[in-house]
Amino acid sequence: MDRIPILKMGDFLLVTIQVDMHDELALSLQEDLTARIARHASRGVLIDISSLEIVDSFIGRMLANIAAMSRVLDAQTVLTGMQPAVAITLVELGMSLPGIRTALNVERGMELLQEFMHRDTESEDNNGSEE
Amino acid sequence: MDRIPILKMGDFLLVTIQVDMHDELALSLQEDLTARIARHASRGVLIDISSLEIVDSFIGRMLANIAAMSRVLDAQTVLTGMQPAVAITLVELGMSLPGIRTALNVERGMELLQEFMHRDTESEDNNGSEE
Repeated sequence: MDRIPILKMGDFLLVTIQVDMHDELALSLQEDLTARIARHASRGVLIDISSLEIVDSFIGRMLANIAAMSRVLDAQTVLTGMQPAVAITLVELGMSLPGIRTALNVERGMELLQEFMHRDTESEDNNGSEE
Repeated sequence: MDRIPILKMGDFLLVTIQVDMHDELALSLQEDLTARIARHASRGVLIDISSLEIVDSFIGRMLANIAAMSRVLDAQTVLTGMQPAVAITLVELGMSLPGIRTALNVERGMELLQEFMHRDTESEDNNGSEE
């Protein structure tokens, strides 16, 4: 398997991580994802890790990188489906994933992203009326 | 990796196949998917195979089985993201995947499922008005 598929769902992109990540795969995911955000002008990225039973510091760092890259491209990242054991490990590893929002599942993640977009639009409207 | 994740998106379920399938994984996917269709009363299943570069007769049969199982549970199956080379191989293998609808990507697959649901509702309405 060379690439992790990125699915476009309306304004958002969805990535399901199912396989063990290694350096090359992580790099190609970062490249593909940033290219897709730019191409579709996506406002949000959902990363589902419900099938990951272990998240080590490598994957943790990769997720943090993806979130940071998305942010500078004006897209929010939401991590969904984290298993309880993974949450425990992450905190034990000292990785609290700053800058990444989480949601229980993809549906709630989408709702979260839609709220963000709605809030953005509202604040833009307010700015507009003040002009 | 033990299980392929199944993501609930509104009335539909989304499965992204990224890894090489083997007997056990295919069986657990069938079990999980039928259980989820029943639990959520889902009306549609989207199977994305955009990252598969090869679809052999084993996967072809598995997809056909999933579609048949979904159908008896009153859910439509749409296969999305098939690579051109895969389409060529499938036809050469003599597998035309009867009973499975296909769509270019997940977004179009969702539109297709929504059309089906809309049509179902309309025909139910018509039946209702005739009573």
